[in-house]
Parts: sequence; structure tokens; C-alpha cells
Amino acid sequence: MTAEKGGENPFETNLDRNSANYTPLSPLSFIERTAGVYPHRTSIIHGTKRFTWAETYARCRRLAGALAGRGVKVGDTVAVMAANTPELFESHFGVPMTGAVLNTLNVRLDADTIAYCLDHGEATVLIADTEFRETIKEAVGKIDRDILVIGIDDSEARDSGARLGETDYEGFLEEGDPEFEWSLPDDEWQAISLNYTSGTTGRPKGVVYHHRGAYLNGLGNVINWNMVQHPVYLWTLPMFHCNGWCFPWTLAAVAGTSVCLRKVSAAAIYAAVAEHRVTHFCGAPIVLNFIINATGEERRDFDHTVQIMTAAAPPPASTLEAIERAGFRVTHAYGLTETYGPAVSCAWHEEWNGLPANEQAQKKSRQGVRYHVLQGLTVMDPETMVPVPADGETMGEIMFQGNIVMKGYLKNPEATGEAMAGGWFHSGDLGVMHPDGYIQLRDRSKDVIISGGENISSIEVEDALYKHPAVMTAAVVAKPDEKWGETPCAFVELKADAGDVTAEDMINFCRDNLAHFKCPRHIVFGEVPKTSTGKIQKFKLRETATAL
Amino acid sequence: MTAEKGGENPFETNLDRNSANYTPLSPLSFIERTAGVYPHRTSIIHGTKRFTWAETYARCRRLAGALAGRGVKVGDTVAVMAANTPELFESHFGVPMTGAVLNTLNVRLDADTIAYCLDHGEATVLIADTEFRETIKEAVGKIDRDILVIGIDDSEARDSGARLGETDYEGFLEEGDPEFEWSLPDDEWQAISLNYTSGTTGRPKGVVYHHRGAYLNGLGNVINWNMVQHPVYLWTLPMFHCNGWCFPWTLAAVAGTSVCLRKVSAAAIYAAVAEHRVTHFCGAPIVLNFIINATGEERRDFDHTVQIMTAAAPPPASTLEAIERAGFRVTHAYGLTETYGPAVSCAWHEEWNGLPANEQAQKKSRQGVRYHVLQGLTVMDPETMVPVPADGETMGEIMFQGNIVMKGYLKNPEATGEAMAGGWFHSGDLGVMHPDGYIQLRDRSKDVIISGGENISSIEVEDALYKHPAVMTAAVVAKPDEKWGETPCAFVELKADAGDVTAEDMINFCRDNLAHFKCPRHIVFGEVPKTSTGKIQKFKLRETATAL
Repeated sequence: MTAEKGGENPFETNLDRNSANYTPLSPLSFIERTAGVYPHRTSIIHGTKRFTWAETYARCRRLAGALAGRGVKVGDTVAVMAANTPELFESHFGVPMTGAVLNTLNVRLDADTIAYCLDHGEATVLIADTEFRETIKEAVGKIDRDILVIGIDDSEARDSGARLGETDYEGFLEEGDPEFEWSLPDDEWQAISLNYTSGTTGRPKGVVYHHRGAYLNGLGNVINWNMVQHPVYLWTLPMFHCNGWCFPWTLAAVAGTSVCLRKVSAAAIYAAVAEHRVTHFCGAPIVLNFIINATGEERRDFDHTVQIMTAAAPPPASTLEAIERAGFRVTHAYGLTETYGPAVSCAWHEEWNGLPANEQAQKKSRQGVRYHVLQGLTVMDPETMVPVPADGETMGEIMFQGNIVMKGYLKNPEATGEAMAGGWFHSGDLGVMHPDGYIQLRDRSKDVIISGGENISSIEVEDALYKHPAVMTAAVVAKPDEKWGETPCAFVELKADAGDVTAEDMINFCRDNLAHFKCPRHIVFGEVPKTSTGKIQKFKLRETATAL
Repeated sequence: MTAEKGGENPFETNLDRNSANYTPLSPLSFIERTAGVYPHRTSIIHGTKRFTWAETYARCRRLAGALAGRGVKVGDTVAVMAANTPELFESHFGVPMTGAVLNTLNVRLDADTIAYCLDHGEATVLIADTEFRETIKEAVGKIDRDILVIGIDDSEARDSGARLGETDYEGFLEEGDPEFEWSLPDDEWQAISLNYTSGTTGRPKGVVYHHRGAYLNGLGNVINWNMVQHPVYLWTLPMFHCNGWCFPWTLAAVAGTSVCLRKVSAAAIYAAVAEHRVTHFCGAPIVLNFIINATGEERRDFDHTVQIMTAAAPPPASTLEAIERAGFRVTHAYGLTETYGPAVSCAWHEEWNGLPANEQAQKKSRQGVRYHVLQGLTVMDPETMVPVPADGETMGEIMFQGNIVMKGYLKNPEATGEAMAGGWFHSGDLGVMHPDGYIQLRDRSKDVIISGGENISSIEVEDALYKHPAVMTAAVVAKPDEKWGETPCAFVELKADAGDVTAEDMINFCRDNLAHFKCPRHIVFGEVPKTSTGKIQKFKLRETATAL
């Protein structure tokens, strides 16, 4: 209680919290409300399956009841390794209803890393799709502790039928009461989920979210994306990734419909848009390429506008133009696992609609401004903690402050302390602040190329490469160089119809568009390795470049 | 910190709040963001005046700086008595930026009541429109304490020119720095505003709001009303009333434009809609009548849809039909001063669009369901605290629970304790719960008429009267009766073109539509007394009825 006057401040005297005027913020309140107000509206579509909000809520309560019946309680961990299926959506509610923490696992991880996460996160229950049973069995075999394994036998999976674990998910739900009496957390600071970072170097770190942040970013998505109620949301973004950028909670707030998708493809996206009238989806820039490069057979007609939120890597102008012509509108956002997914977005200005397409794309390529529910966003010199000038040129580290910054890293106070040194969350991303207060990423700290003492932003070089009409994907990393220290090395994936393009063509093209010292010295053609969430795996490219 | 395992719960260990991951919720963060992101967008239109968000933010900071310079600090009270002008809007930010509490005063109150509020609320500063100088002078004269009076000399006021107080508002702003460094409250539970109840019986009570609730209901309005950014909002609702239902804070969040209005009239509403393309406004049902009963000269053409939020008294079907034909869409909401204004709204179902007009009106006449940011809404027997059956018939008291219930009544722990007995805020309103979870008001507890031992809802009788085509306003109260205890007595304001209607006609009309024991025994024709916010003053009618 703030009271400069001490007990004398009448506004802070006999006006304490009580159960009439204070409730911990929790996104669980959203599903309770929507199930009550819109019980018969469709919550989830998955293949031929349909659920209503009343059904989904009852299933979540069954899950909570079944988990509680098996002894799951406040502070326990329930891990889930699943594709974008109803079970994973339900886990976002059913698990925290017991007070436990949801730990979603990246389905592409190897058994060793999965075992590390289960061990470090102390999961006592693992709900997993039978498709991943080999990895799961191997991972669980490495754990020196009993874990209750529950198999998801998804009707939409290709290899459905094989069993995994002690029981299957539907059977497990039967153990729970559809009217299970869950309660909100006693404290909104209580953990709701645990998300491991992708860990490109060293072991992954366990990022802990709380109910307060999940509630706020659930609403933050609504207000930042100008969503009204009843969106139809397509799950192109993996739900295991930062809790699907908090969208399970957002959709519960606005009584939206989730269209599940086990596997992303151009045909599946167009089909969902045409058949279910999808209004919104999120995804890595690779999803935009799927759409633009769809064949005539894959494409479907539709007469509404589809909103896409894409993060981190700015879509090149040509991609933006092509996709907007096809009936989609792109919002560019940015965030990290540590910021509940998107925490920054490129808030649009109506007057920008009058700009030429390439200038619009330039505006849109900036990551933007803070979410309403984030308090601070700045670009600072991490040594001095002084903000860089807002000149669009001076690089610094992007830093965050506010309620959608993680609680911290699980069982890692050193890393937590470092990440939050000086009262700001240090993103590790380098960027600039434009004069209008919009930030733009320049690079991950570790992705900057230092050539002859000059910093080169790998993103700037990639942007130049993307302007070449034959380029599908471009990634630039540092290659050690005796003379210059490092030089830029580019990895390029060409479009199917690219024809003959040589490394020399590429380098000359860059020289027309970039300062010469920034141009790649080497061009490597071929498929660029990506993570399950579509992020390019630069650490692999760095190994290749070093070995060249 | 919740931790059933005590210190052993790893999710609650070394994961505490710090300035990187925790910020007190405050609507002040909205204006800071919007001034940064949309500095050049119009914040306020008032007559020929225009402000941008950068200007409004600078003026708020000047106000805060000037107040701080005069010694205003955390826990102090700054009262404002103003029409819907930019100064009152600015006070919603400038005052709390100092840590002080904003006390907006109803401009229609008499000097004695104003003096009571200033005294009870311990205001040290009073900002007041010169139009109210006589009342202000008289009120301040009754206070045994120095109050700094600052006069608002509004260019749109009819009697502009006369001075009030030590200095005028614009001069006062000059004392403050446009870059004044304000800070968020240390605790989101800190008081932000003080709103006195209308006090139809006894002295008004001082309802205290906190930053957390103001932030949440600021966002609650956005999500409940499906607002997207940049609405154009017309100030038909007095801004002094429950802080304008939190809309100053909502508009700062969504970078909307406020169109100020000193005096509500049909012509002014239509002019604002046509000239400024107003998209939203709020108001008592009387505002709906203004619009419907506008003359041809007052009406203006417009080609967009205008959203209206109206509260408490359900608009009769005929009113709804007429107003929707005229290009407006009505959302019915409900709340009290104690719930930050609207906390309940009649969430619409798309399938209801297919119903006949009168059935749609019936649906819409229900107050509805909880705001997303409210946690609990119920109808209970206040004796037993057991919810009434959801049968749409059994009356009980409407009760609220959650973050948009007030901190309590200032310096009145007894009233606070009574209002929140049993962990729920007792509204004093009687209603029913429908089978679909929507509540409907039946009456204020004290407005129920008990005739021959039977409860009669005055609202039900009023609804019947409103169906008569000649009725403009209807209000029903209890008249003491020797035989029956009480009988319903109706006060009716007829439309200008009503022609000859007798009391007998009215009573017969009611008998066609109501159980006979519910029909009024007396009909009194004439103007019905209303408060400044358009609420009918039933206590006055009760006096008249008793004297009949």
C-alpha cells in the first residue's frame, strides 16, 4: 500500500483488498466467461471434429479433475508434447486449473533434450501425441523418476492407432469430472507455464510465465491486433511455441474459433481460409512464402481479408506486396520467449496507406512499438544503460520492462539476474530507435559480423539479398577471415523457377545495393536449415561457413 | 507468493518481482504510449479547438507539474467541477500523475452538497468552470480551510469572461513543465479517483477507485464493446459521472478522438455525427429519446453506423427499433458508481439478428453478463447468500466480485463493510437470472412496490407504459395505501404530439398488458424530474405520490 502520509492517507485506510474487490488476474477467467456466455459457439475445429465452448470447458475441467485425482497440485509440472490439436489447446486451461504449470515441448526436439527438459522442469505427467512415441519412450527412459505418460491418439494423425503410455487422453478425461471445481490461483504471480528456449548454444533455459502476464498478453493481443469477438483463428504457429503467443487465452477471451492444423502447407492454409472463413493467423515469415508460392491447385478463392501476424524477420517488400494482393494483411510483431511471445508490434498509421508500396513495406519492416500491456521498450547501450539516440542509425540492445516480461529462468538465478540487470530485460537483440519511436532489429548480438572493425548487420545484408527476384530464403553469417577478422557469408535458397543464378550475380547484385564492405564474399546455394518454428538455424550455418 | 510446497516450489523461488518484470497497472501508461505512437492524431475536438495527443499529453504533464509545484502529492485530492471540456479530460491524467486523487463533481449539485464533498474529500485544489462560479463561491465559503481555486474559462461557454479563483486554468498550466517527469504509482492499488454517489437518501458516499481498476476497465470497455483503434467518441455522457465510465482512459488506450459537448441536444448529436463522423457515444436512455424525437431540422444525414452504449434502464422495443432504423446500434450495459461504471453488458449473439424486432428488443433489454475484467456476477438472496434459481423469475439482489469493484467508501468503513458483506459487493438492485446466464434488473430494492403482500417491479409496470405510443417517459413508485399497503402510482410525460390521453386510457392499456394487481391506480401527467445524468428522481416522485 502506497501511503506517503503513512496511516494518515485516508485513501489507503480501511480500503484494503477483499474478495469482493480483488481477484487475481488469470486467463482461466476468460474460458469460464465464454463457456457461460457463448456455450454453443464453436471453440475448436479439427478435421471433422467440432467442439463448442461448453464442451471445451467441460473437457478442460475433466482434464483438471483427472490430473488432480492423480495428485497433481500447485507447483507441479505437466509437460505436453503435441501437434496443434485440441488436446494441447485444452492443456492451456486444464493444467493451470489444478495450480500446476504447463510445460509445452517442441515436437522436433531430440530425445536427449526432451529428457533434459522433463528432468529440469520436474514434470510428473507427460501428455504426448503417439506420433512422437519413439522420442518419448527414449526420453522417458533416460529419466530416473516415474512419469505418468498419457497418449494422445489424434484422429488426424497419419499413424494413429499405436498406443503410448499408461492410458490415452480420452480415457484419462473420463477420470475427471466435467464440473470439477477449480479455483483461480491465490496469487496472480503464480506460475502458469514453462517454456524452454530453443537453446542454440548450451542447454535450453526454462522461461516461467505467470497468470498475471498470461491474462494481460491475452488481452494485449486483442487490443494490439484490433480484434473483435469471434475471430476464426488458424493454428499455423505451433501452440507449443511461447504458448502459441498467448493465443489460446486470447481466443478464450474473444470467444473465437480455433482451426487446428497438424501440418502447415499452402493447400491446408488456403483450404481453411476458404472453408472455415479463417480471419486471423500467426506464423514465421516462412508461412508467408508458403502462401505466395502456392500453386494454382493449392490456391482457393475467398472474399474476405485475412489478418496475418508475423514476427521477428521483416518480410521483404516484394513478399508483402504479393501477399497483400492475394487478400492478406500483414502485421509485423516482435518478441521473445521471455516476453510471452509478441510484445512489440508495428502499429500502423492510416496515412501510410498513401505511400508507394516499397515505402509501406519499409515502414512495415520495422518491429514497431510496445504492446499496450508492456510498459517499457528501449534501445540502450548495455554497458552504460543509456538509450541510444533515436536516429535510426545507432545500434544498441533492445530492452523490455513490464508485466509481460517472464518471472525469470527456472532454477537459474544467475541467468535471471543477468537477463534483468539494471531493471530491464536484455533481449540480446541489436537494433535502432527511429525518430518516431519505432524500433527496428538489426541483429542478434551474436549475429553481428565484425569486418575490419566495422559492424555489419546480417539482417541488412539479407534484406539486400531478398530484393533479388530469384531468392526464396537468405541467411547471412560471419565467416572467420585472416585479413578482416570476419566477412559475410550468405546462404541462399532459390525459388523453384529461379533459373540460372550464379554466386557472382548475387554478389554483384549486393554491390548495387549495399556498401561494398557489407557484401557477402561467399554465396552458398541450397536448402537453409530451419527450426520447427521456421527460424533459420544460424549456428549450423556458422559451422558450415567456418569449414568452407 | 503462492507456494503450497513452501520454499520448495521451484516456480516461486528466486523468481520475484523486479522492475524489469513488474509494473503497477495504471491507465497513465496508455496516454504515454499513445502520445508516443500517434503524436499527431487528434485527441480532442471542442468547438473550433483541436488538440493532438502530443499536445494533450504535454498539457496533462503541465497540469501535473503545476499541481506538484503547488505542493500536491500522493494522497491529496484535486476536485474538478466542469462540463465535458478538454480540461476535465486532461484532469483524468494530470491529477493522478502527481499521485493525487481526482474528485469530479456533479455540476448540478447545490452549494451545500458541493461543500460537503470538498470537505469530506479533503480537496486542496478545486478546478472549476466559471459557469458554476456562484455555486463554487458559496460552497468554498462554507469550507473552513484554504482551497486553491482555478477557473476554467471555456471558449464554448455562453457566459465566458467572468473570472473565478486565484488563477485561470491556462495560466496555471504555464506554471508546469510540458516534460514534467511523472511516475507510475508505487502500488496499483493506490487511489486514482473519488466519485460521490448521487445520494438520493442521506449524504453522498465517496467511492474510491484505484489505478488497477481504472486500467482494467479502460481495457474492459475496448473488449466488451468490440472497439478497434481510433474511435471518434462523443461526450454525451457527463465525464464527471464515474469518470465518464472510464472512457477517458479507454480513449487514451485506443488513440481515439474525444468530441466534447457542453450541452447535449439532438441537434448537437446529429451535427457531431455528421461533421466529425462520431462512431461511439454513451448515455442515459434520455439521450436515445433526443435522437428519436429530433425534428427534421435537427437531423443530419450520415452513412456510417454509430454505436451507442446505454445503461441501466432498458430502452423499450419501440425506441430500439426507431433508433436502429436511424443508423445507430445500441448496446445495453449496467453498472454502478461502485463498479467503475459499466461492468455488465448485454453481449449479443449473432443468431439473435434473425429474431423479430420485439424479440430482439426483449433480448437487448436484459442487462446481460459480466465484463471480461469483472470476475463474478450473480443474483443472490442477500439473507442466505444463496444464488437464486436461473429461471428468469425469482428475484434476488445483484452482486459483483472482482477488480472493477471499488476500493470502498472513503472514511466510511461501516458502509464499506456492509456493501461488501460476505465477499460480494451488494448493488442494492433487484433482478433475476435467466436460464442463459443473463441478468435482468427488476428494481432497486427500495423501488419495489409491495401491494397486498405481492412484490411489484416498478420497471415491469414502466415497461408496460412505454409500450403506449403516447408515452415519452414513465416512472412508477409506491403510493401508501390503507388497504393494500402500497399501490403503484405512475408519473407519465407524454410526447408533444400525443393528443388527448386520459388516466383511464392509460390504466386500461396497462390492464391489457399486465396482471391487474400490478396496474397503476393513479396516473400523474407532467414532466418527470431527472438528475443531471438523466436518472429519474424517484424519491421526489415518492413524496408527490404520498401527498396525493
